[in-house]
Amino acid sequence: MRTSIVPTSVGKTKITDPLFGAYVQMVAHQVIPYQWEAINDRVPDAEKAYCIENFRVAAGLQQGVHRGAIFQDTDLYKWLEAVAFCIAYGEGEDFRPIADEVIDLIAQAQEPDGYLNTYFTIECPEKKWTNLTEGHELYGCGHLIEAAVAYYQATGTRKLLDVACKFADLVDRTFGAEDGKCHGYPGHQEIELALVKLYRVTGEKRYLSLANYFIRQRGGKPNYLLEEMAGRKGNNVFPEFAEYDDKYAQTHCHPVDQTTAVGHAVRAVYMYSAMADLAMEYEDADMQKACETLYRNIVDKRMYLTGGIGSSGKLERFTTDYDLPNDRMYCESCASVGLMMFSQRMASLTGNAGYYDTVERALCNTVMAGISKDADRYFYVNPLEVWPDNCLPSTSMSHVKPVRQKWFACACCPPNIARTLASLGQYIYAQSDTALYVNMFISSQWNTTINGTEVKLDMKAEHMTGGKVTLTLETEAPVELRIRLPWYLRSPSLSRDGGEETLNVENGYAVVSVCGKTKLEIGGSVEAKFVAANRNVRADVGKVALMKGPYVYCLEQVDNGENLASIFVSPAAPIEELAPQQDLPGTLPTLQVSGRRLVQTIAQQDDLYGDPSFDVQDVTLKAIPYALWCNRQSGEMLVWMHAQV
Amino acid sequence: MRTSIVPTSVGKTKITDPLFGAYVQMVAHQVIPYQWEAINDRVPDAEKAYCIENFRVAAGLQQGVHRGAIFQDTDLYKWLEAVAFCIAYGEGEDFRPIADEVIDLIAQAQEPDGYLNTYFTIECPEKKWTNLTEGHELYGCGHLIEAAVAYYQATGTRKLLDVACKFADLVDRTFGAEDGKCHGYPGHQEIELALVKLYRVTGEKRYLSLANYFIRQRGGKPNYLLEEMAGRKGNNVFPEFAEYDDKYAQTHCHPVDQTTAVGHAVRAVYMYSAMADLAMEYEDADMQKACETLYRNIVDKRMYLTGGIGSSGKLERFTTDYDLPNDRMYCESCASVGLMMFSQRMASLTGNAGYYDTVERALCNTVMAGISKDADRYFYVNPLEVWPDNCLPSTSMSHVKPVRQKWFACACCPPNIARTLASLGQYIYAQSDTALYVNMFISSQWNTTINGTEVKLDMKAEHMTGGKVTLTLETEAPVELRIRLPWYLRSPSLSRDGGEETLNVENGYAVVSVCGKTKLEIGGSVEAKFVAANRNVRADVGKVALMKGPYVYCLEQVDNGENLASIFVSPAAPIEELAPQQDLPGTLPTLQVSGRRLVQTIAQQDDLYGDPSFDVQDVTLKAIPYALWCNRQSGEMLVWMHAQV
Repeated sequence: MRTSIVPTSVGKTKITDPLFGAYVQMVAHQVIPYQWEAINDRVPDAEKAYCIENFRVAAGLQQGVHRGAIFQDTDLYKWLEAVAFCIAYGEGEDFRPIADEVIDLIAQAQEPDGYLNTYFTIECPEKKWTNLTEGHELYGCGHLIEAAVAYYQATGTRKLLDVACKFADLVDRTFGAEDGKCHGYPGHQEIELALVKLYRVTGEKRYLSLANYFIRQRGGKPNYLLEEMAGRKGNNVFPEFAEYDDKYAQTHCHPVDQTTAVGHAVRAVYMYSAMADLAMEYEDADMQKACETLYRNIVDKRMYLTGGIGSSGKLERFTTDYDLPNDRMYCESCASVGLMMFSQRMASLTGNAGYYDTVERALCNTVMAGISKDADRYFYVNPLEVWPDNCLPSTSMSHVKPVRQKWFACACCPPNIARTLASLGQYIYAQSDTALYVNMFISSQWNTTINGTEVKLDMKAEHMTGGKVTLTLETEAPVELRIRLPWYLRSPSLSRDGGEETLNVENGYAVVSVCGKTKLEIGGSVEAKFVAANRNVRADVGKVALMKGPYVYCLEQVDNGENLASIFVSPAAPIEELAPQQDLPGTLPTLQVSGRRLVQTIAQQDDLYGDPSFDVQDVTLKAIPYALWCNRQSGEMLVWMHAQV
Repeated sequence: MRTSIVPTSVGKTKITDPLFGAYVQMVAHQVIPYQWEAINDRVPDAEKAYCIENFRVAAGLQQGVHRGAIFQDTDLYKWLEAVAFCIAYGEGEDFRPIADEVIDLIAQAQEPDGYLNTYFTIECPEKKWTNLTEGHELYGCGHLIEAAVAYYQATGTRKLLDVACKFADLVDRTFGAEDGKCHGYPGHQEIELALVKLYRVTGEKRYLSLANYFIRQRGGKPNYLLEEMAGRKGNNVFPEFAEYDDKYAQTHCHPVDQTTAVGHAVRAVYMYSAMADLAMEYEDADMQKACETLYRNIVDKRMYLTGGIGSSGKLERFTTDYDLPNDRMYCESCASVGLMMFSQRMASLTGNAGYYDTVERALCNTVMAGISKDADRYFYVNPLEVWPDNCLPSTSMSHVKPVRQKWFACACCPPNIARTLASLGQYIYAQSDTALYVNMFISSQWNTTINGTEVKLDMKAEHMTGGKVTLTLETEAPVELRIRLPWYLRSPSLSRDGGEETLNVENGYAVVSVCGKTKLEIGGSVEAKFVAANRNVRADVGKVALMKGPYVYCLEQVDNGENLASIFVSPAAPIEELAPQQDLPGTLPTLQVSGRRLVQTIAQQDDLYGDPSFDVQDVTLKAIPYALWCNRQSGEMLVWMHAQV
């Protein structure tokens, strides 16, 4: 195994940040129980999951048919992964018996040869592996593996890991370049990155090779998925696949030759994550180059200010450079989770702190916005502009929900958010053989060991509220610490035990060597400010948005009245930082700016069109973090405001 | 039959206007031949129609299966209707033999009991009338009737009319409130208005009663179409009907109780047209009230500046009040044709000239834009803002084509535009028992008879190029003339044989009595100007558009460079009228205004986001009529420009 930068294991961390700490606690104590009820179909008035029921039917414990989406098993796997992370950081023991029991159920649903997918087992065992495009069997295997690895790492118990290995072994016997094996690959990438994890935890090289096969095989001619689909003659599981094309699942060419982020956004970033893993494991410069090119295409041309991706509502996909419409896009919560995963891996691969700008952007905006402050409502689609009146079923806007939902018929996002927040520590801290990495300023504690030296680190990050970031370290031997200096930290400074130090910055990290008990303070200011978009972004031309640090701010109707589109602000307007909203979690300030509202546009105000007659009123605007929108009243929301140019 | 205002028959008119005259000539001499080739599948590289082939197969003249859309027959019917209008105004004789021959083919494809639909005859005769929701059999019958009525009126020959009556009689025997009849109604309204036409031309009251049944039956509980659909258990012809609801085909309540324009836009306005017909025939005040309410909902809250309707790309439907997005909507050419039909009927019903504002708005913008100046390319979807780069297949924008197409797999629009332009005379002139009506100022001649008096009218409409509208009349007895004074004619005046007259205006019409040879001149100015939208239209807040008279203007990339979204204009900027583009038809001026282009928005111009750094450049902008866009080079197009508020 190549030595490189490895995110820390979740169990070594404890999040104490007023916002993130609360959310991480919420995952353990409210989200996990809520989602358990949801996947058991016990949440009143919510979409049914049928998830646990399907496992019971497949295990022979209950009569019945498979219900719900074809990939419903993965809700349980992601939930289990979240439980594992909670157990790892010491908050999940209450759910341990339930988790152990449901792991038994999973094992019972597994077929003797290792196959595990409740849909195919119950409904059509003869059709296994015949619909890779839509069937999600390999995708399911991937999430099973991820859950199993996390559960094994958290508890040391092997039961779920054995189930996962048994399934992975079947997949390995079934798929490959060798004669007699199926030459296919997943219709939804996920198993590739999971197999790399499985290899890393088991040391079994064949899992890595299988991941490598899946990535290398993809994009070959003839196109396996298109041929498979043609054989079904339009008899698709998903009606929307009438418009399926070879870019949808990134099979238009070999991944290593891909240069632009295309197709279904979640599939894309899950695949890019695996590509980064493989580039690291095989020390493959070409693959690394492809990853860098794809990463730059996303962050330079296809990513929303909020770290959302997927500009097309239809088929949840990337479109073209600078096409970033604010209301009708997809910006799936899962896609931003995947973008965090990909960016984190790029940082590990290159040692460059800049990739964490994207981790942080996705986390602090789209991923956090995906869940309510009360743990029981979720966004799937994360627009930057919402007008509830036009979020109507059976229209171009039907995928956009103006309020978070209790659950979804396709509920990939809620447990994905849960497992991401539950594993937040891995995004904050990492280490290599030679250094410890602090990648994000989120108050937390970290206990780890490097080269036999135990290190305790306590971070108090008060930079968002006018203070400093204080790192209190205890280490008996000298340790190199690499502290990411984020792009928004103005005039960064470093002091050690009260004494100023010169900043030594490498790859975006301030490099400090510490020994003994040491207090480091990172100073600098994080100012609330206006940002604008590249002029090629047609949707944002002549507009500005408010940010403070990595947090995008938004206007909500509850604070600013209706018709937010009628608001104009000057990019030169002073931004006042108010106390945080009492009714929202965390300590991020509310921002206040003066602006103008267009209160009249035509002379005859009841007409639809008329002679221009513009009249404006001065208004005081209040903006809150996008991460926290829709936690008070439903209504309009807006990130990009018209600028008085 | 109730006495009311009746649009003139097309054969009595001759269009001489530089723009419309050219288009009407083009319909006869280029569009009709081109579309004949298209429906015979002889246009290279165009979507196949299979239209004539299906009739040959159904007639037993050729072996084969039905190909193309389920409603493909109607392309031929609409084409025939256009041919009939061309014959009526003396330009269609060349195509008469072909039309007569294809009418024989239609008759051969008709089953002995009168049934006529090539899809069901060829593919599944046992399924007739079992899928009213999607089957389009009644819709097809409607277009057959319309073609037959037009062909009979143009030629006096009854063959197609007999075919239509035979089918209509079968429909009458099959559908109705009586026991033993099917209590269904059309999934796509059209036959209702056609049956009224058939009643008017044959005098057979049962056709009117059948139309009345279809409208009255609609919206009853239980919902016929939803029940029928539920029986198919998702096995739909149209995949997009997975999101079908009771509003889609306006079956959510009885038409007379409907108050907002909802659902599929074409279905809606075709139905409203029939409702207006029935209100007139039955002197039904409640139905008239419903029509007026629906009309006002459209024009006050749900209509684009261009007379386009249908704000949702998905399912081509209305959405909600003031929801008028400029790029992703549908605005189908057929829907604007339907809006012309509905508005025309409302004018006939009420005698109010104002409804022609909407006829004219739809005609002069969306309908005209639907066809290229060379007759061989068509728009189906008519956005007000196009950025070709994001009009990508398999995305939310896949329905939007940045250039006109040679033909469509579903080709309802091209022949609908053809029949509308070919019958333009009926929208210009109308008459009642007591008066002649001039409804639009489009240069043309009209010869008619009122109360036994022959009247010749010659209109030279030069008001769009700084002149007057001159009406030269010859009549031996006194005749009342009602001349619509459009909303955009400033300081209208009237002179008779050179002498000023006082304007006597009733219901939007200048009322003049004439006798003998008389020259009337309508003076007044039509200024190019900026317009704005109601402030509730979020998509247009802080924007302005250019209009001159009923014509909406637009910016094209060929004249104004790329990134039209970056352009700002002052609503107070002087508008200069230039000579018309030499390379575009007609004599409408090109408009020129000074504006500013945002050439920089952020400091680091290659970044996606950054600190606002706005820099503008003065630019001179050139706008052309929206009706004529995309006739030179493909590229961006924009109607609503950012205003410097």
